[in-house]
Amino acid sequence: MLNLLEKHRCFNGHQEIYSHESFSNKCKMQFALYTPDKNENIPVLYFLSGITCTEQNFIQKSGYQKFASEHEIAVVVPDTSPRGKGIPDSESYKLGWGAGFYLNATEDPWSLNYNMYDYITNELPQIIGLNFQFSKSKIGIFGHSMGGGGAIQCALKNPLYKSVSAFSPICSIHQSEFAKEARQQYLNDNYDNLNLYDPLFLIEKTKKKFEQIIIDVGLDDEFFNDLYIDDFQDLCKKNNQNLTLNKHEGFDHGYFFIQSFIEKHIKYHASFLNNF
Amino acid sequence: MLNLLEKHRCFNGHQEIYSHESFSNKCKMQFALYTPDKNENIPVLYFLSGITCTEQNFIQKSGYQKFASEHEIAVVVPDTSPRGKGIPDSESYKLGWGAGFYLNATEDPWSLNYNMYDYITNELPQIIGLNFQFSKSKIGIFGHSMGGGGAIQCALKNPLYKSVSAFSPICSIHQSEFAKEARQQYLNDNYDNLNLYDPLFLIEKTKKKFEQIIIDVGLDDEFFNDLYIDDFQDLCKKNNQNLTLNKHEGFDHGYFFIQSFIEKHIKYHASFLNNF
Repeated sequence: MLNLLEKHRCFNGHQEIYSHESFSNKCKMQFALYTPDKNENIPVLYFLSGITCTEQNFIQKSGYQKFASEHEIAVVVPDTSPRGKGIPDSESYKLGWGAGFYLNATEDPWSLNYNMYDYITNELPQIIGLNFQFSKSKIGIFGHSMGGGGAIQCALKNPLYKSVSAFSPICSIHQSEFAKEARQQYLNDNYDNLNLYDPLFLIEKTKKKFEQIIIDVGLDDEFFNDLYIDDFQDLCKKNNQNLTLNKHEGFDHGYFFIQSFIEKHIKYHASFLNNF
Repeated sequence: MLNLLEKHRCFNGHQEIYSHESFSNKCKMQFALYTPDKNENIPVLYFLSGITCTEQNFIQKSGYQKFASEHEIAVVVPDTSPRGKGIPDSESYKLGWGAGFYLNATEDPWSLNYNMYDYITNELPQIIGLNFQFSKSKIGIFGHSMGGGGAIQCALKNPLYKSVSAFSPICSIHQSEFAKEARQQYLNDNYDNLNLYDPLFLIEKTKKKFEQIIIDVGLDDEFFNDLYIDDFQDLCKKNNQNLTLNKHEGFDHGYFFIQSFIEKHIKYHASFLNNF
Protein backbone atom coordinates (compact mmCIF):
# COMPACT_ATOMS: atom_id res chain seq x y z
CA MET A 1 0.00 0.00 0.00
CA LEU A 2 1.26 3.45 -0.95
CA ASN A 3 1.14 6.41 1.43
CA LEU A 4 1.13 9.83 -0.17
CA LEU A 5 3.42 12.01 1.97
CA GLU A 6 3.69 15.15 -0.17
CA LYS A 7 1.95 16.51 -3.24
CA HIS A 8 2.96 19.79 -4.88
CA ARG A 9 1.64 21.27 -8.07
CA CYS A 10 4.63 21.84 -10.37
CA PHE A 11 4.31 22.98 -14.00
CA ASN A 12 1.45 21.00 -15.61
CA GLY A 13 1.58 18.13 -13.16
CA HIS A 14 2.41 17.19 -9.60
CA GLN A 15 5.55 16.35 -7.68
CA GLU A 16 4.63 13.66 -5.18
CA ILE A 17 6.42 11.69 -2.46
CA TYR A 18 5.24 8.21 -1.45
CA SER A 19 6.25 5.72 1.22
CA HIS A 20 5.57 2.00 1.31
CA GLU A 21 6.74 -1.21 3.01
CA SER A 22 9.37 -2.78 0.79
CA PHE A 23 9.48 -6.58 0.57
CA SER A 24 12.93 -6.46 -1.06
CA ASN A 25 14.52 -4.30 1.60
CA LYS A 26 12.38 -5.30 4.60
CA CYS A 27 11.81 -1.71 5.64
CA LYS A 28 9.84 1.39 4.76
CA MET A 29 11.08 3.07 1.58
CA GLN A 30 10.27 6.46 0.01
CA PHE A 31 10.23 7.46 -3.62
CA ALA A 32 9.37 10.62 -5.54
CA LEU A 33 7.09 10.65 -8.56
CA TYR A 34 6.32 13.36 -11.09
CA THR A 35 2.98 12.86 -12.83
CA PRO A 36 2.03 15.12 -15.74
CA ASP A 37 -1.70 15.97 -15.81
CA LYS A 38 -2.19 13.91 -18.94
CA ASN A 39 -0.65 10.64 -17.89
CA GLU A 40 -2.49 7.67 -19.35
CA ASN A 41 -0.11 5.30 -21.10
CA ILE A 42 2.77 7.80 -20.98
CA PRO A 43 6.40 6.61 -20.70
CA VAL A 44 7.99 6.12 -17.27
CA LEU A 45 11.56 7.15 -16.57
CA TYR A 46 13.50 6.04 -13.47
CA PHE A 47 16.27 8.27 -12.10
CA LEU A 48 18.88 6.66 -9.82
CA SER A 49 20.70 9.19 -7.64
CA GLY A 50 24.29 9.29 -6.41
CA ILE A 51 25.91 8.56 -3.05
CA THR A 52 24.47 10.50 -0.03
CA CYS A 53 21.26 11.39 -1.88
CA THR A 54 17.69 10.57 -0.90
CA GLU A 55 14.70 10.86 -3.24
CA GLN A 56 14.81 14.61 -2.54
CA ASN A 57 18.06 15.81 -4.13
CA PHE A 58 17.18 15.25 -7.77
CA ILE A 59 13.64 16.59 -7.46
CA GLN A 60 14.81 19.78 -5.77
CA LYS A 61 18.00 20.51 -7.68
CA SER A 62 17.83 19.26 -11.25
CA GLY A 63 14.92 21.29 -12.63
CA TYR A 64 13.69 18.19 -14.50
CA GLN A 65 9.99 18.85 -13.85
CA LYS A 66 9.68 21.50 -16.58
CA PHE A 67 10.74 18.98 -19.21
CA ALA A 68 8.84 16.02 -17.76
CA SER A 69 5.77 18.27 -17.93
CA GLU A 70 6.44 19.46 -21.47
CA HIS A 71 7.25 16.02 -22.86
CA GLU A 72 4.60 14.22 -20.77
CA ILE A 73 6.73 11.58 -19.12
CA ALA A 74 6.36 10.24 -15.57
CA VAL A 75 9.60 10.25 -13.55
CA VAL A 76 10.22 7.95 -10.58
CA VAL A 77 13.06 8.86 -8.21
CA PRO A 78 13.82 6.18 -5.59
CA ASP A 79 15.95 6.55 -2.51
CA THR A 80 19.56 5.33 -2.77
CA SER A 81 19.41 2.72 0.01
CA PRO A 82 17.27 1.35 2.79
CA ARG A 83 17.52 3.55 5.88
CA GLY A 84 15.92 4.16 9.27
CA LYS A 85 15.80 2.55 12.69
CA GLY A 86 17.32 -0.92 12.74
CA ILE A 87 18.88 -0.66 9.26
CA PRO A 88 22.68 -1.20 9.27
CA ASP A 89 24.77 1.87 8.47
CA SER A 90 28.44 2.83 8.58
CA GLU A 91 30.49 5.92 9.31
CA SER A 92 31.68 6.06 5.72
CA TYR A 93 29.39 7.92 3.32
CA LYS A 94 30.30 5.32 0.70
CA LEU A 95 28.66 2.44 2.60
CA GLY A 96 25.26 1.96 4.20
CA TRP A 97 22.55 4.65 4.20
CA GLY A 98 22.73 6.68 0.99
CA ALA A 99 25.08 4.21 -0.69
CA GLY A 100 23.14 1.09 -1.64
CA PHE A 101 24.93 0.84 -5.02
CA TYR A 102 21.84 -0.73 -6.64
CA LEU A 103 23.01 -4.27 -5.87
CA ASN A 104 21.83 -7.19 -3.72
CA ALA A 105 24.20 -7.59 -0.76
CA THR A 106 25.26 -11.14 0.06
CA GLU A 107 27.09 -10.48 3.34
CA ASP A 108 26.01 -9.86 6.92
CA PRO A 109 24.83 -7.48 8.29
CA TRP A 110 23.79 -6.02 4.92
CA SER A 111 22.07 -8.85 3.10
CA LEU A 112 18.70 -8.63 4.85
CA ASN A 113 17.97 -5.03 3.84
CA TYR A 114 20.39 -4.01 1.10
CA ASN A 115 18.62 -5.46 -1.92
CA MET A 116 18.38 -2.33 -4.00
CA TYR A 117 18.84 -4.23 -7.26
CA ASP A 118 15.67 -6.24 -6.69
CA TYR A 119 13.92 -3.15 -5.39
CA ILE A 120 14.72 -1.05 -8.47
CA THR A 121 14.31 -3.62 -11.22
CA ASN A 122 11.43 -5.66 -9.82
CA GLU A 123 9.52 -4.30 -6.81
CA LEU A 124 9.30 -0.64 -7.73
CA PRO A 125 8.20 -1.21 -11.35
CA GLN A 126 5.49 -3.57 -9.98
CA ILE A 127 4.31 -0.91 -7.55
CA ILE A 128 4.23 1.76 -10.25
CA GLY A 129 2.45 -0.60 -12.63
CA LEU A 130 -0.20 -1.52 -10.08
CA ASN A 131 -0.93 1.98 -8.80
CA PHE A 132 -0.71 4.22 -11.87
CA GLN A 133 -2.02 4.17 -15.40
CA PHE A 134 1.31 4.87 -17.11
CA SER A 135 2.58 2.65 -19.90
CA LYS A 136 3.78 -0.80 -18.77
CA SER A 137 6.26 -1.09 -21.62
CA LYS A 138 7.64 2.38 -22.40
CA ILE A 139 10.18 2.38 -19.59
CA GLY A 140 13.58 4.08 -19.44
CA ILE A 141 16.25 4.55 -16.79
CA PHE A 142 18.97 7.10 -16.10
CA GLY A 143 21.03 8.27 -13.17
CA HIS A 144 24.00 10.14 -11.77
CA SER A 145 27.38 8.91 -10.49
CA MET A 146 26.65 5.75 -8.42
CA GLY A 147 23.17 5.93 -9.95
CA GLY A 148 24.54 6.47 -13.46
CA GLY A 149 26.44 3.20 -13.19
CA GLY A 150 23.36 1.69 -11.55
CA ALA A 151 21.17 2.75 -14.47
CA ILE A 152 23.58 1.20 -16.97
CA GLN A 153 23.93 -2.15 -15.18
CA CYS A 154 20.16 -2.41 -14.59
CA ALA A 155 19.46 -1.50 -18.21
CA LEU A 156 21.94 -3.96 -19.70
CA LYS A 157 20.42 -6.94 -17.89
CA ASN A 158 16.67 -6.26 -18.00
CA PRO A 159 14.38 -6.23 -21.02
CA LEU A 160 12.14 -3.90 -18.99
CA TYR A 161 14.28 -0.87 -19.89
CA LYS A 162 14.12 0.36 -23.46
CA SER A 163 16.32 3.46 -23.08
CA VAL A 164 19.26 4.37 -20.86
CA SER A 165 21.44 7.42 -20.21
CA ALA A 166 23.71 8.71 -17.45
CA PHE A 167 25.41 11.74 -15.93
CA SER A 168 29.01 11.09 -14.78
CA PRO A 169 28.41 7.35 -14.16
CA ILE A 170 30.69 5.12 -12.10
CA CYS A 171 31.43 2.55 -14.82
CA SER A 172 33.66 0.18 -12.85
CA ILE A 173 32.45 -1.41 -9.64
CA HIS A 174 35.62 -3.53 -9.72
CA GLN A 175 38.01 -0.57 -9.81
CA SER A 176 36.34 2.64 -8.60
CA GLU A 177 37.51 3.94 -5.22
CA PHE A 178 33.90 5.01 -4.63
CA ALA A 179 32.84 1.35 -4.61
CA LYS A 180 35.74 -0.04 -2.54
CA GLU A 181 33.81 -0.47 0.71
CA ALA A 182 30.67 -1.56 -1.11
CA ARG A 183 32.44 -4.39 -2.93
CA GLN A 184 34.19 -5.54 0.25
CA GLN A 185 31.31 -5.28 2.68
CA TYR A 186 28.24 -5.97 0.55
CA LEU A 187 29.78 -8.68 -1.68
CA ASN A 188 32.93 -9.86 0.13
CA ASP A 189 34.92 -8.97 -3.00
CA ASN A 190 33.40 -11.94 -4.78
CA TYR A 191 34.50 -11.60 -8.40
CA ASP A 192 31.46 -13.19 -10.01
CA ASN A 193 29.01 -11.22 -7.89
CA LEU A 194 30.79 -7.96 -8.63
CA ASN A 195 30.54 -8.71 -12.34
CA LEU A 196 26.75 -8.66 -12.05
CA TYR A 197 26.79 -4.95 -11.31
CA ASP A 198 29.82 -3.80 -13.30
CA PRO A 199 29.07 -1.79 -16.47
CA LEU A 200 32.49 -2.60 -17.96
CA PHE A 201 31.93 -6.32 -17.53
CA LEU A 202 28.32 -6.23 -18.65
CA ILE A 203 28.86 -4.21 -21.80
CA GLU A 204 31.14 -7.03 -23.01
CA LYS A 205 28.94 -9.92 -21.89
CA THR A 206 25.38 -8.77 -22.50
CA LYS A 207 23.70 -9.49 -25.81
CA LYS A 208 21.20 -6.68 -25.25
CA LYS A 209 21.86 -3.59 -27.34
CA PHE A 210 20.37 -0.11 -27.15
CA GLU A 211 19.86 2.18 -30.13
CA GLN A 212 22.18 4.46 -28.21
CA ILE A 213 23.47 5.06 -24.71
CA ILE A 214 23.96 8.73 -23.81
CA ILE A 215 26.53 9.84 -21.25
CA ASP A 216 27.31 13.42 -20.22
CA VAL A 217 30.28 14.23 -18.01
CA GLY A 218 32.12 17.39 -16.98
CA LEU A 219 35.80 17.77 -17.78
CA ASP A 220 36.29 19.54 -14.43
CA ASP A 221 34.62 16.63 -12.65
CA GLU A 222 36.75 16.16 -9.55
CA PHE A 223 36.13 12.39 -9.73
CA PHE A 224 36.67 11.98 -13.48
CA ASN A 225 39.50 9.45 -13.16
CA ASP A 226 37.47 7.31 -10.76
CA LEU A 227 34.54 6.94 -13.17
CA TYR A 228 36.22 4.82 -15.92
CA ILE A 229 34.06 6.39 -18.61
CA ASP A 230 36.78 6.27 -21.26
CA ASP A 231 37.13 2.51 -20.65
CA PHE A 232 33.37 2.18 -21.04
CA GLN A 233 33.58 4.08 -24.32
CA ASP A 234 36.33 1.77 -25.62
CA LEU A 235 34.29 -1.32 -24.73
CA CYS A 236 31.14 0.10 -26.32
CA LYS A 237 33.07 0.61 -29.56
CA LYS A 238 34.54 -2.91 -29.38
CA ASN A 239 31.12 -4.42 -28.78
CA ASN A 240 29.16 -2.40 -31.33
CA GLN A 241 27.11 -0.52 -28.75
CA ASN A 242 26.41 2.99 -30.01
CA LEU A 243 27.47 5.46 -27.30
CA THR A 244 27.06 9.24 -27.41
CA LEU A 245 29.61 10.52 -24.91
CA ASN A 246 29.57 14.28 -24.35
CA LYS A 247 32.45 15.78 -22.38
CA HIS A 248 31.76 19.32 -21.20
CA GLU A 249 34.51 21.79 -20.52
CA GLY A 250 34.34 23.55 -17.15
CA PHE A 251 31.55 21.46 -15.63
CA ASP A 252 31.97 19.55 -12.35
CA HIS A 253 30.25 16.54 -10.73
CA GLY A 254 27.30 18.30 -9.06
CA TYR A 255 23.73 19.32 -9.71
CA PHE A 256 24.63 22.61 -11.42
CA PHE A 257 26.09 20.34 -14.11
CA ILE A 258 23.06 18.02 -14.13
CA GLN A 259 20.56 20.87 -14.45
CA SER A 260 22.53 22.25 -17.42
CA PHE A 261 21.92 19.09 -19.46
CA ILE A 262 18.76 17.59 -17.96
CA GLU A 263 16.53 18.85 -20.78
CA LYS A 264 18.41 16.82 -23.39
CA HIS A 265 18.12 13.58 -21.37
CA ILE A 266 14.40 13.92 -20.62
CA LYS A 267 13.69 14.83 -24.23
CA TYR A 268 15.65 11.85 -25.52
CA HIS A 269 13.91 9.31 -23.29
CA ALA A 270 10.44 10.76 -23.92
CA SER A 271 10.74 10.84 -27.68
CA PHE A 272 12.50 7.47 -27.96
CA LEU A 273 10.01 5.72 -25.67
CA ASN A 274 7.01 7.30 -27.37
CA ASN A 275 8.20 5.99 -30.72
CA PHE A 276 9.11 2.58 -29.36
CA MET B 1 37.25 42.51 -0.50
CA LEU B 2 35.34 39.61 -2.00
CA ASN B 3 36.26 35.98 -1.34
CA LEU B 4 35.16 33.47 -3.95
CA LEU B 5 33.93 30.41 -2.03
CA GLU B 6 32.37 28.35 -4.82
CA LYS B 7 32.30 28.48 -8.60
CA HIS B 8 30.31 26.02 -10.70
CA ARG B 9 29.82 26.04 -14.44
CA CYS B 10 26.06 26.13 -15.07
CA PHE B 11 24.51 26.53 -18.52
CA ASN B 12 26.46 29.27 -20.38
CA GLY B 13 27.79 30.93 -17.26
CA HIS B 14 28.84 30.32 -13.69
CA GLN B 15 27.07 30.01 -10.36
CA GLU B 16 29.34 31.59 -7.77
CA ILE B 17 29.25 32.13 -4.00
CA TYR B 18 31.11 35.03 -2.40
CA SER B 19 31.75 36.15 1.16
CA HIS B 20 32.76 39.60 2.38
CA GLU B 21 32.87 41.74 5.52
CA SER B 22 29.68 43.78 5.64
CA PHE B 23 29.86 47.32 7.01
CA SER B 24 26.06 47.51 7.30
CA ASN B 25 25.70 44.31 9.29
CA LYS B 26 29.09 44.27 11.03
CA CYS B 27 29.71 40.65 10.19
CA LYS B 28 30.72 38.38 7.36
CA MET B 29 27.95 37.96 4.76
CA GLN B 30 27.58 35.56 1.81
CA PHE B 31 25.80 36.06 -1.47
CA ALA B 32 25.33 34.02 -4.63
CA LEU B 33 25.90 35.40 -8.11
CA TYR B 34 25.10 34.00 -11.52
CA THR B 35 27.26 35.48 -14.27
CA PRO B 36 26.50 34.64 -17.89
CA ASP B 37 29.64 34.29 -20.04
CA LYS B 38 28.80 37.44 -21.96
CA ASN B 39 28.28 39.87 -19.10
CA GLU B 40 29.52 43.34 -19.97
CA ASN B 41 26.85 45.95 -19.33
CA ILE B 42 24.13 43.33 -18.83
CA PRO B 43 21.20 43.92 -16.43
CA VAL B 44 21.48 42.87 -12.78
CA LEU B 45 18.55 41.28 -10.95
CA TYR B 46 18.44 40.88 -7.16
CA PHE B 47 16.43 38.01 -5.64
CA LEU B 48 15.38 38.31 -1.99
CA SER B 49 14.55 34.95 -0.39
CA GLY B 50 11.98 34.02 2.23
CA ILE B 51 12.22 33.19 5.93
CA THR B 52 14.69 30.40 6.89
CA CYS B 53 16.56 30.66 3.57
CA THR B 54 20.21 31.38 2.98
CA GLU B 55 21.70 32.35 -0.39
CA GLN B 56 21.56 28.61 -1.25
CA ASN B 57 17.84 27.81 -1.46
CA PHE B 58 16.96 29.84 -4.51
CA ILE B 59 20.07 28.86 -6.46
CA GLN B 60 19.51 25.17 -5.81
CA LYS B 61 15.73 24.90 -6.13
CA SER B 62 14.33 27.48 -8.55
CA GLY B 63 16.03 26.45 -11.80
CA TYR B 64 16.55 30.15 -12.64
CA GLN B 65 20.02 29.67 -14.12
CA LYS B 66 18.74 28.35 -17.46
CA PHE B 67 16.83 31.57 -18.05
CA ALA B 68 19.47 33.92 -16.65
CA SER B 69 21.86 32.25 -19.09
CA GLU B 70 19.49 32.47 -22.06
CA HIS B 71 18.47 36.07 -21.42
CA GLU B 72 21.96 37.19 -20.31
CA ILE B 73 21.14 38.74 -16.98
CA ALA B 74 23.27 38.60 -13.82
CA VAL B 75 21.38 37.46 -10.71
CA VAL B 76 22.47 38.34 -7.17
CA VAL B 77 21.01 36.28 -4.31
CA PRO B 78 21.85 37.63 -0.85
CA ASP B 79 21.40 35.85 2.47
CA THR B 80 18.24 36.71 4.43
CA SER B 81 19.94 38.02 7.57
CA PRO B 82 23.27 38.41 9.31
CA ARG B 83 24.29 35.16 11.00
CA GLY B 84 27.21 33.45 12.70
CA LYS B 85 29.11 33.57 15.97
CA GLY B 86 28.14 36.58 18.09
CA ILE B 87 25.11 37.53 15.96
CA PRO B 88 21.85 37.61 17.98
CA ASP B 89 19.32 34.91 17.12
CA SER B 90 16.06 33.61 18.56
CA GLU B 91 14.30 30.29 18.90
CA SER B 92 11.54 31.44 16.57
CA TYR B 93 12.22 30.92 12.86
CA LYS B 94 10.46 34.23 12.24
CA LEU B 95 13.09 36.28 14.08
CA GLY B 96 16.87 36.44 13.95
CA TRP B 97 18.96 34.30 11.63
CA GLY B 98 17.10 33.67 8.39
CA ALA B 99 14.49 36.35 9.12
CA GLY B 100 16.06 39.77 8.68
CA PHE B 101 12.94 41.14 6.95
CA TYR B 102 15.03 43.52 4.82
CA LEU B 103 14.74 46.34 7.38
CA ASN B 104 17.08 48.28 9.66
CA ALA B 105 16.44 47.24 13.27
CA THR B 106 16.26 50.05 15.82
CA GLU B 107 16.13 47.97 19.02
CA ASP B 108 18.71 46.12 21.10
CA PRO B 109 20.13 43.52 20.68
CA TRP B 110 19.32 43.62 16.97
CA SER B 111 20.26 47.10 15.83
CA LEU B 112 24.00 46.59 15.54
CA ASN B 113 23.80 43.76 12.98
CA TYR B 114 20.29 43.64 11.56
CA ASN B 115 20.55 46.33 8.89
CA MET B 116 19.47 44.30 5.91
CA TYR B 117 17.72 47.27 4.29
CA ASP B 118 20.98 49.21 4.03
CA TYR B 119 22.82 46.07 3.05
CA ILE B 120 20.45 45.27 0.16
CA THR B 121 19.77 48.74 -1.19
CA ASN B 122 23.15 50.36 -0.65
CA GLU B 123 26.10 48.13 0.29
CA LEU B 124 25.49 45.17 -1.98
CA PRO B 125 24.83 47.24 -5.13
CA GLN B 126 28.07 49.12 -4.40
CA ILE B 127 29.99 45.86 -4.08
CA ILE B 128 28.52 44.50 -7.30
CA GLY B 129 29.19 47.78 -9.07
CA LEU B 130 32.81 47.88 -7.97
CA ASN B 131 33.69 44.27 -8.65
CA PHE B 132 31.84 43.38 -11.86
CA GLN B 133 31.32 44.95 -15.27
CA PHE B 134 27.54 44.64 -15.31
CA SER B 135 25.32 47.63 -16.06
CA LYS B 136 25.18 50.20 -13.24
CA SER B 137 21.68 51.33 -14.20
CA LYS B 138 19.73 48.33 -15.53
CA ILE B 139 18.83 46.96 -12.12
CA GLY B 140 15.76 45.00 -11.07
CA ILE B 141 14.62 43.25 -7.91
CA PHE B 142 12.30 40.36 -7.07
CA GLY B 143 11.75 37.93 -4.25
CA HIS B 144 9.61 35.37 -2.48
CA SER B 145 7.37 35.64 0.61
CA MET B 146 9.32 37.79 3.13
CA GLY B 147 11.63 38.58 0.21
CA GLY B 148 8.72 39.35 -2.12
CA GLY B 149 7.51 42.02 0.26
CA GLY B 150 11.14 43.07 0.71
CA ALA B 151 11.58 43.48 -3.04
CA ILE B 152 8.45 45.61 -3.29
CA GLN B 153 9.33 47.93 -0.38
CA CYS B 154 12.92 48.34 -1.58
CA ALA B 155 11.76 49.01 -5.14
CA LEU B 156 9.12 51.57 -4.16
CA LYS B 157 11.61 53.75 -2.30
CA ASN B 158 14.77 53.54 -4.39
CA PRO B 159 15.35 54.95 -7.89
CA LEU B 160 18.04 52.26 -8.26
CA TYR B 161 15.44 49.62 -9.15
CA LYS B 162 13.78 49.90 -12.54
CA SER B 163 11.70 46.70 -12.41
CA VAL B 164 10.07 44.68 -9.63
CA SER B 165 8.17 41.43 -9.27
CA ALA B 166 7.34 38.94 -6.55
CA PHE B 167 6.25 35.40 -5.72
CA SER B 168 3.71 35.16 -2.88
CA PRO B 169 4.90 38.40 -1.20
CA ILE B 170 4.10 39.39 2.38
CA CYS B 171 2.44 42.71 1.59
CA SER B 172 1.66 43.87 5.13
CA ILE B 173 4.39 44.21 7.74
CA HIS B 174 1.79 45.83 9.99
CA GLN B 175 -0.64 42.91 9.88
CA SER B 176 1.06 39.67 8.79
CA GLU B 177 1.51 37.06 11.50
CA PHE B 178 4.83 36.22 9.85
CA ALA B 179 6.13 39.67 10.81
CA LYS B 180 4.73 39.82 14.34
CA GLU B 181 7.98 39.14 16.18
CA ALA B 182 9.99 41.17 13.68
CA ARG B 183 7.87 44.30 14.19
CA GLN B 184 7.95 43.91 17.97
CA GLN B 185 11.60 43.03 18.44
CA TYR B 186 13.34 44.83 15.58
CA LEU B 187 11.23 48.00 15.61
CA ASN B 188 9.43 48.05 19.00
CA ASP B 189 6.14 48.25 17.10
CA ASN B 190 6.92 51.83 16.15
CA TYR B 191 4.23 52.82 13.66
CA ASP B 192 6.30 55.20 11.57
CA ASN B 193 9.22 52.85 11.33
CA LEU B 194 6.98 49.97 10.31
CA ASN B 195 5.53 52.15 7.55
CA LEU B 196 8.99 52.37 5.98
CA TYR B 197 8.92 48.68 5.12
CA ASP B 198 5.22 48.10 4.53
CA PRO B 199 4.18 47.58 0.88
CA LEU B 200 0.54 48.55 1.65
CA PHE B 201 1.62 51.86 3.17
CA LEU B 202 4.25 52.58 0.56
CA ILE B 203 2.08 51.91 -2.47
CA GLU B 204 -0.18 54.72 -1.24
CA LYS B 205 2.56 57.16 -0.27
CA THR B 206 5.26 56.71 -2.87
CA LYS B 207 5.27 58.83 -6.00
CA LYS B 208 7.45 56.30 -7.83
CA LYS B 209 5.56 54.23 -10.38
CA PHE B 210 6.59 51.14 -12.32
CA GLU B 211 5.42 50.27 -15.82
CA GLN B 212 4.05 47.19 -14.09
CA ILE B 213 4.50 45.13 -10.96
CA ILE B 214 4.12 41.37 -11.47
CA ILE B 215 2.96 39.09 -8.67
CA ASP B 216 2.39 35.34 -8.89
CA VAL B 217 0.76 33.42 -6.06
CA GLY B 218 -0.70 29.94 -5.63
CA LEU B 219 -4.34 29.53 -4.66
CA ASP B 220 -3.38 26.55 -2.48
CA ASP B 221 -0.77 28.67 -0.71
CA GLU B 222 -1.12 27.65 2.93
CA PHE B 223 -0.28 31.24 3.96
CA PHE B 224 -2.46 33.03 1.40
CA ASN B 225 -4.54 34.92 3.99
CA ASP B 226 -1.43 36.15 5.77
CA LEU B 227 0.05 37.74 2.64
CA TYR B 228 -2.50 40.58 2.08
CA ILE B 229 -2.03 40.42 -1.67
CA ASP B 230 -5.66 41.29 -2.44
CA ASP B 231 -5.29 44.46 -0.31
CA PHE B 232 -2.16 45.30 -2.26
CA GLN B 233 -4.07 44.83 -5.51
CA ASP B 234 -6.85 47.16 -4.32
CA LEU B 235 -4.34 49.85 -3.37
CA CYS B 236 -2.47 49.51 -6.67
CA LYS B 237 -5.72 50.10 -8.50
CA LYS B 238 -6.59 53.08 -6.31
CA ASN B 239 -3.16 54.59 -6.85
CA ASN B 240 -2.84 53.95 -10.57
CA GLN B 241 -0.03 51.46 -10.25
CA ASN B 242 -0.34 48.80 -12.95
CA LEU B 243 -0.26 45.37 -11.28
CA THR B 244 -0.35 42.02 -13.04
CA LEU B 245 -1.52 39.59 -10.38
CA ASN B 246 -1.62 35.94 -11.42
CA LYS B 247 -3.36 33.48 -9.10
CA HIS B 248 -2.56 29.87 -9.88
CA GLU B 249 -4.90 27.06 -8.99
CA GLY B 250 -3.35 24.16 -7.09
CA PHE B 251 0.03 25.77 -6.40
CA ASP B 252 1.40 26.17 -2.86
CA HIS B 253 3.98 28.46 -1.22
CA GLY B 254 7.16 26.51 -1.97
CA TYR B 255 9.89 26.21 -4.57
CA PHE B 256 7.94 23.77 -6.79
CA PHE B 257 5.63 26.76 -7.33
CA ILE B 258 8.52 29.19 -7.88
CA GLN B 259 10.27 26.97 -10.42
CA SER B 260 7.01 26.67 -12.38
CA PHE B 261 6.90 30.43 -13.04
CA ILE B 262 10.53 31.54 -12.75
CA GLU B 263 11.03 31.73 -16.53
CA LYS B 264 8.37 34.40 -16.91
CA HIS B 265 9.89 36.60 -14.19
CA ILE B 266 13.47 36.37 -15.47
CA LYS B 267 12.30 37.04 -19.02
CA TYR B 268 10.28 40.06 -17.95
CA HIS B 269 13.11 41.69 -16.01
CA ALA B 270 15.71 40.98 -18.70
CA SER B 271 13.66 42.34 -21.57
CA PHE B 272 12.33 45.35 -19.64
CA LEU B 273 15.78 46.29 -18.31
CA ASN B 274 17.45 45.82 -21.68
CA ASN B 275 14.96 48.21 -23.26
CA PHE B 276 15.17 50.70 -20.43
